[in-house]
Amino acid sequence: MAATPASASASASAETFDLDPAFALHRGGKLEVRSTVPVRDADDLALAYTPGVARVCTAIADTPSLVNDYTWVSNVVAVVSDGTAVLGLGDIGPSAAMPVMEGKALLFKEFANVDAVPICLDCTDVDALVETVVRLAPSFGGINLEDISAPRCFEVEDRLRDLLDIPVFHDDQHGTAIVVLAALQNAARLTGRSLGDLRAVVAGAGASGVAVTRILLEAGIGDIAVSDSKGMIHAGREDLNPVKQALARDTNRAGHTGSTEEALAGADVFVGLSGSTVSEQAIASMAADAIVFALSNPTPEVHPEVAARHARVVATGRSDFPNQINNVLAFPGVFRGALDVRASTITENMKVAAANALAAVVGDEVTATYVIPSPFDDRVAPAVTAAVAAQARADGVARA
Amino acid sequence: MAATPASASASASAETFDLDPAFALHRGGKLEVRSTVPVRDADDLALAYTPGVARVCTAIADTPSLVNDYTWVSNVVAVVSDGTAVLGLGDIGPSAAMPVMEGKALLFKEFANVDAVPICLDCTDVDALVETVVRLAPSFGGINLEDISAPRCFEVEDRLRDLLDIPVFHDDQHGTAIVVLAALQNAARLTGRSLGDLRAVVAGAGASGVAVTRILLEAGIGDIAVSDSKGMIHAGREDLNPVKQALARDTNRAGHTGSTEEALAGADVFVGLSGSTVSEQAIASMAADAIVFALSNPTPEVHPEVAARHARVVATGRSDFPNQINNVLAFPGVFRGALDVRASTITENMKVAAANALAAVVGDEVTATYVIPSPFDDRVAPAVTAAVAAQARADGVARA
Repeated sequence: MAATPASASASASAETFDLDPAFALHRGGKLEVRSTVPVRDADDLALAYTPGVARVCTAIADTPSLVNDYTWVSNVVAVVSDGTAVLGLGDIGPSAAMPVMEGKALLFKEFANVDAVPICLDCTDVDALVETVVRLAPSFGGINLEDISAPRCFEVEDRLRDLLDIPVFHDDQHGTAIVVLAALQNAARLTGRSLGDLRAVVAGAGASGVAVTRILLEAGIGDIAVSDSKGMIHAGREDLNPVKQALARDTNRAGHTGSTEEALAGADVFVGLSGSTVSEQAIASMAADAIVFALSNPTPEVHPEVAARHARVVATGRSDFPNQINNVLAFPGVFRGALDVRASTITENMKVAAANALAAVVGDEVTATYVIPSPFDDRVAPAVTAAVAAQARADGVARA
Repeated sequence: MAATPASASASASAETFDLDPAFALHRGGKLEVRSTVPVRDADDLALAYTPGVARVCTAIADTPSLVNDYTWVSNVVAVVSDGTAVLGLGDIGPSAAMPVMEGKALLFKEFANVDAVPICLDCTDVDALVETVVRLAPSFGGINLEDISAPRCFEVEDRLRDLLDIPVFHDDQHGTAIVVLAALQNAARLTGRSLGDLRAVVAGAGASGVAVTRILLEAGIGDIAVSDSKGMIHAGREDLNPVKQALARDTNRAGHTGSTEEALAGADVFVGLSGSTVSEQAIASMAADAIVFALSNPTPEVHPEVAARHARVVATGRSDFPNQINNVLAFPGVFRGALDVRASTITENMKVAAANALAAVVGDEVTATYVIPSPFDDRVAPAVTAAVAAQARADGVARA
């Protein structure tokens, strides 16, 4: 195989890049694999490797569940991406997605002591992705899908959930959905309402828009309508993929057929997951005590200070404004709880339980600028972990 | 998905198993993934994850080679197995293979600071294995194949070497071959001969037998003949797979057609990689200053004390006898050297260079019971690393 010499310009660029502290921090990557057992001498080696390891292998071959006791598998999650929908950057491919997947893995470790391995796959076909993850599955206790573009992400997750008996969780969908539900519960409580009292509009029918809509329906939202780039999703549209057709059936009882902004008139809740913009006028047309979650990053659908002129509660995805909707509030504890009880899957109930636990961390201290905890509140991961584990037991999917 | 409750008997077994120190050491596994950067507060998070990470992703999308500078990929090796030929245990499947692959990964880290991830695949078809590793490749800087049964292992490695521009190395083949060549060089030197003076018999035409034969041919062995379970491999046999047909063409100039023991009469070197046994009588029939490497584990083809009655140099795969032929002498330094210069492949020359460097660690201190260094000799990995890196440069496969 021919060698490709390193280009001088790439090296020069690297040095220039390092003037940016984000690049300097990323140099050499952000992860390492370490041994948790000593290998000081031949005696250690004889236990950790041959011949001692052969007895452990034989025991697992005889009693497969022992793999959870005597390997790291039951504590390790694959963070799997095909690089097609990375942050707001789009389809940048598996190599360019790696820094995000490494980042996810380090958050798993730092926030919940879950070992996580970034796996960026050089394939985008649904069949290929599913087949590859199934083949990898014996090496992992859970699968976190990440940054796979819609609508492929829905089918990939659905099929893997059917095929595997370990947790499969597309964080762009369900991590966002859990944190939004938690924040919305607190916002509703702050304003003396229940979810059933609220009419919501969700801008965006990608991975997160669909999952947020589904969890809010599950949690009993009064009414909810969803828009995509063509306007509100309703049963009369003929350009809908199957996922959106299902949304058209299950949402929009009010029958909105126009734009997102038109639907916002009199609405109680706006959830922006679209990358688009919403005018101040549209926000002003919402009902009293409006709740605005403008979650596109780095540019929210409406500037939070503008939204706050008209809305009672405003949240964004950014750390430099109050009420940051950040998935790291959910996924570490969700997997920690699922792994702790060796859950065979993550049920809808477990996601709602995670949201309830997250909302309860705020508790009676809820204010308009504090409907969701900080990512660095160290009560969060243990609370989510405990709730998810308990719900797994209640749902009969726990195996330990 | 239905839950499978943990069986009470499995739990009871686990406690009993832990009376064995190998099981106690394996509890919870032997590896963890750790962050190498701090995540103490929102500022750290903004560099290691969003929004800072987006700049790094964008740079890699623009200049793909930067993935080597700003992710862990260039230091991480996948230890890939399908669990079909694990130690002497045979086809025990991917889950039962995991303790060995974890062990391999920890040796990579301890001996050469290579981060390694155990990947046990739930597929055994050659096409499926090749396809899966190709899809995984963007996440890794090298692929260490392990415990894949012959003859599939040859095709899997050959095809992956063609398809990928990162090092692919089947350790059962080449790790063993490198260490055997090093030990044989020193044994020959001790007895005042060169490799070209030696006539060798190799028992076993699996992964390691084939690779040892190939590297000894490459290094200029005088003559070499190989046996499988049916006897000596020669051109007159009609039951040979393509790999053995090639061996028949390239070996056995003396034209042995009988048993391994018959071929040993007058031979200078015996290398046992077969799991079979060889009688004391056959060892006694070898030439003066015979060299016997009885490498099957845990039971050598001939007991080393019995062999020593007739042979000048005896080596085994065991740590409780002199001259342990242990792959850990080779693979950590081979990958460290290849990764350090971002080699696009591992050439035959690089393997021979690794063997030469390993032999040179013993140097003038060579004796009949010291033809190969101890695995815990801390000169070994640096010497192999330097030799492999230099040879990669000389062969034009280095990219850094």
